[in-house]
Amino acid sequence: MIVAIGTSSFGQADPQVLEMLEAAGIRIRPNPYGRRLTEEETIAHLKGADGLLAGLEPLNKRVLENCSLRALARVGIGMTNVDTEAAAELGIKISNTPDGPTRAVAEMTLTALLCLSRDIRTQDQALHRGEWSKTIGRSISGLTVLMVGFGRIGQAAAELIASLGAKIVVYDPYVKSDEIHSNYQSCSMEDGLRQADAVSLHASGDKCIMGPHAFSIMKQGSILLNSARAELVDESALISALDDGRLASAWFDVFWHEPYRGRLCEYSQVLLTPHACTYTRECRSLMETEAVENLLRDLGLKRRQ
Amino acid sequence: MIVAIGTSSFGQADPQVLEMLEAAGIRIRPNPYGRRLTEEETIAHLKGADGLLAGLEPLNKRVLENCSLRALARVGIGMTNVDTEAAAELGIKISNTPDGPTRAVAEMTLTALLCLSRDIRTQDQALHRGEWSKTIGRSISGLTVLMVGFGRIGQAAAELIASLGAKIVVYDPYVKSDEIHSNYQSCSMEDGLRQADAVSLHASGDKCIMGPHAFSIMKQGSILLNSARAELVDESALISALDDGRLASAWFDVFWHEPYRGRLCEYSQVLLTPHACTYTRECRSLMETEAVENLLRDLGLKRRQ
Repeated sequence: MIVAIGTSSFGQADPQVLEMLEAAGIRIRPNPYGRRLTEEETIAHLKGADGLLAGLEPLNKRVLENCSLRALARVGIGMTNVDTEAAAELGIKISNTPDGPTRAVAEMTLTALLCLSRDIRTQDQALHRGEWSKTIGRSISGLTVLMVGFGRIGQAAAELIASLGAKIVVYDPYVKSDEIHSNYQSCSMEDGLRQADAVSLHASGDKCIMGPHAFSIMKQGSILLNSARAELVDESALISALDDGRLASAWFDVFWHEPYRGRLCEYSQVLLTPHACTYTRECRSLMETEAVENLLRDLGLKRRQ
Repeated sequence: MIVAIGTSSFGQADPQVLEMLEAAGIRIRPNPYGRRLTEEETIAHLKGADGLLAGLEPLNKRVLENCSLRALARVGIGMTNVDTEAAAELGIKISNTPDGPTRAVAEMTLTALLCLSRDIRTQDQALHRGEWSKTIGRSISGLTVLMVGFGRIGQAAAELIASLGAKIVVYDPYVKSDEIHSNYQSCSMEDGLRQADAVSLHASGDKCIMGPHAFSIMKQGSILLNSARAELVDESALISALDDGRLASAWFDVFWHEPYRGRLCEYSQVLLTPHACTYTRECRSLMETEAVENLLRDLGLKRRQ
C-alpha cells in the first residue's frame, strides 16, 4: 500500500511517525519538492497512492477524480483546500487534526503580541548595528485585546494573554455572550475595534472583516495580529493603516499568496512568519501522529507497535 | 529646592511624575545628555541639588562627597552604583523601588524565551528579504528551564514560564528547598545545567557563575537568558559556546560595558536589547512615581495633588 505525503516537513520533528507507517507495511512517497505542490504536481504525486497525508496542496474535484485515493488525512485543521463534497462522492474518507495546533498557535500569538508590544525587533536590530537605542513599550497588563473569533484557538490565545494581565474583549457572532468566560467582555466588532490596543484574528471563513472602515475606527497606534486567514484582511487597507500610523505594527503568519513576497516585506514594523505557527517539534509530532492514526484507521489498517 | 534627574527617560512614560515634583515646589534639573552620566558629569550635574532621582550613574564616595544631596532615590532596584556606606556617613537618605521592575523584567524574560524557542527572528528577517523559510522550533511546554536565582524577579519569571507548561528547576543557594513552590524542583547548579533546555539568570552580585566549565556541561543547543547582570557571565566562554553550538541562542539585556558595542553584536543568533527590561509605559510610570514619593518623603516634603 502506498501513502503519499503532502506536507513539506513530515517526520522531521519526530521520525516515529515514519516508523508507524512502515510498521503497517506502507510504502511512503515523500513530498518531492519540499514545498507546497501545485495542482499538476499533486495529480502526479498521487498516482497510484492509496492514502494521502495532506498539507495545503489543492485537493479539488479534478485532482480527486484523477487519483485512486481511499483516504486522505489532513495534517492540520483547515479543510478549505479539500473539496469535501467531491471526496464524499468518490468514497474517499477524510479526516483532520482539530486539536493539535491549538496550543502552538495560541503560544505564537502571545509571542507576536509580546514582541510587538515590547518593540523587541527594532531594539535588537539597532543593537546588532552597534546602536544603543531604548524605546518605551507597553506591558501586556496595560492592554485591551480584542479577540475576533472565539473557537478553540481564540479561547486558548485569550487565556494566555489574559494570564499576563490584559483585558480581553471578544467578538464572535457564533458564540453567545453567556458562553464567554466571565473575566472577558463580549462586544460588537465596532466597539471592540474602538477600544482595543491590539486585535487578534481567530475567525474561520474567507470573508473580509478588516476593510477600510474597520481600520479607520481602530485606536491610533494599535497592533493587528493575524494567525488565521489572510482573506480576513484587505491588503490595501492594511498598507494604508500602516502608512498613516493607525496601526503601529502588525504580525502576519498567513498571506494572500504563499510563499509571500508582497508589499508587507518592505514594512519593518511588521513581524512576518512563514505560516509557521504550528512549527514546533511538540506540535508537529502531535499533529502528524494524530493524522497517521486517522489514516491507518481509514485505510482499514491497525497501528502496530 | 532642586532635584537632579539621573535617568535618561524620566517623565516620558507618564508626565505626571514631573507634575508631582513641580506641585511640591521643586525645580527639576533634567539629565542633559539623554544617556548614563560619567563620574565627572555626575559631579557637575549634582552641583547645588538637594535631591537626586538616580539612574545607574556612578554615585561613589568621591561623587557623594562633592555634592550637597540630602536624599537620593533610585528609580529601580539595583544599588551597586551607590556607595551606601558613604551615603550613610554623609547623612544622605537613600531609597530604591524594589517592586516596580519585577513584572516587566519577568515579562521580557518570557518574551525572549518565546522569541528564541520559536526562532521568530530568523524567519522574520528572511521573509523581509523575500525568503520563505520555515524552521521547526520548540513549544515552551516541551522545555525544562533552569532559574538561577529565585528572588522576586526569578519567582515572577518562573511563574510566567510555568504557566505555558515548562518544567521549572531552581538553583538558589540562599533559598531553602522547602521555600520553593511544590511544582518546581530545587537542584544544584551542575544538575540544573545538565538537564535544562534554557537557563535564565536572576542572581544578584557580580560573581561569575557562567564560566567555561558551566557552559561545557550545558545541553547541546540550549538557550541562555540574561536580564540580571553581565558580570555573571564570562564573555569569552559565552562566545566559545555560541561558536561551537553548545548554545543555540542567547538573550542579553545587560552588558559588561554599556552602551554595548562588543562581539555579541556580530552573532545573529543572539537577541540583544539595550538594558530595556523595565522600559514599558506601565513599569516606568510605576517606578518613577514610587521614586518621587520616596524622594519627597526623604526631603521632608509632602506630596500635594
